[in-house]
Amino acid sequence: MAGLAEQTLRFAMDAQFGGEPAACSKVRHNEEMINRSEREIDQMALDLLAMEQPMAGDLRFILAAIKINSDLERVGDQSMAIALLSEELAQWQPHVFPVDIPKMAELSIAMLRRALQALAESDAELALSVLAMDDQVDEMNRRVKGILLGCIAQDPAGAHAAVNLLFIARSLERIADHATNMAEDVIFWVRGADVRHGAGLQAQAS
Amino acid sequence: MAGLAEQTLRFAMDAQFGGEPAACSKVRHNEEMINRSEREIDQMALDLLAMEQPMAGDLRFILAAIKINSDLERVGDQSMAIALLSEELAQWQPHVFPVDIPKMAELSIAMLRRALQALAESDAELALSVLAMDDQVDEMNRRVKGILLGCIAQDPAGAHAAVNLLFIARSLERIADHATNMAEDVIFWVRGADVRHGAGLQAQAS
Repeated sequence: MAGLAEQTLRFAMDAQFGGEPAACSKVRHNEEMINRSEREIDQMALDLLAMEQPMAGDLRFILAAIKINSDLERVGDQSMAIALLSEELAQWQPHVFPVDIPKMAELSIAMLRRALQALAESDAELALSVLAMDDQVDEMNRRVKGILLGCIAQDPAGAHAAVNLLFIARSLERIADHATNMAEDVIFWVRGADVRHGAGLQAQAS
Repeated sequence: MAGLAEQTLRFAMDAQFGGEPAACSKVRHNEEMINRSEREIDQMALDLLAMEQPMAGDLRFILAAIKINSDLERVGDQSMAIALLSEELAQWQPHVFPVDIPKMAELSIAMLRRALQALAESDAELALSVLAMDDQVDEMNRRVKGILLGCIAQDPAGAHAAVNLLFIARSLERIADHATNMAEDVIFWVRGADVRHGAGLQAQAS
């Protein structure tokens, strides 16, 4: 499911760059598979809890898996949103904006990969490094917003396209948030510590 | 926690209408309480799973609670986003846009209330009615987006304010999605059926 979510975001970015006309339908197809996987994984987690009565680390792992499952499903949703906004964009008069959306996408994808690698290797240190990357994406999103608002003021004819890019940047920022949530869940599983909203981060660092 | 989330969204809408200068700090205060509650509820769920080894309906209830917990926390996040966008708006030259954001907010709040009432009363029928309301909010969001894009094209000086309203509408639409997720979790708990992404909806209707 993690591989699917990452691939879906890559297809969505293909839609964004317009080089691949079938990108949007690929995203849709993947998103349906992700939705099916989400249900299957939840059912597996329920069966395991009911039949195996897992304890300690195993129990924390299953709870982390339930949460990561739901974050991955939302990565699929956001990828679909990006693909639809990109499909619209491709139909309009092209406008060039001085923003680096691909760079923002690469950073979000890197966060996603790293959170999932941390899960696969039960590596809490690696997961902690994802939390730091989130600030970079937030900062990029703020900068993109400022630049695009300036573009709208100067050239209202490109406003619609600029607004779509604003929403694409916002979706990428949300995907980075989901990667952050997943990294927090990995830390919770591995260390038994809850690092959400900064709680326990000091304890982690010491 | 549910009461807190609803109150936080109301404070955020107060910030939006600008009548209450302290609204933004009230939202921030509530959002911190929500984050704390999220951790406490997750810990309670973990303790219950470890110590009581609940089965069937009880197990499904705890899983639903874990998911609803995370949706409520995101309602807090979105309310904070609305409050910050509104605070910015209040500092700018006022612009009047022909969009009914309060109506959209009322519908989202109604969905939230109804999903939580369905949870409190274990009422799957009531929860099903929330799913239908989501389409209305999506439609309102599409209309608001169209109107605001028209406004930007006609009056670029108001573009920044219009973009903030676009994002506020998008946050309300996301809150409605969270209410929908919660309603689905209530149905899953009460009926043991998974209605996400339309799966099992026919079985529910028959």
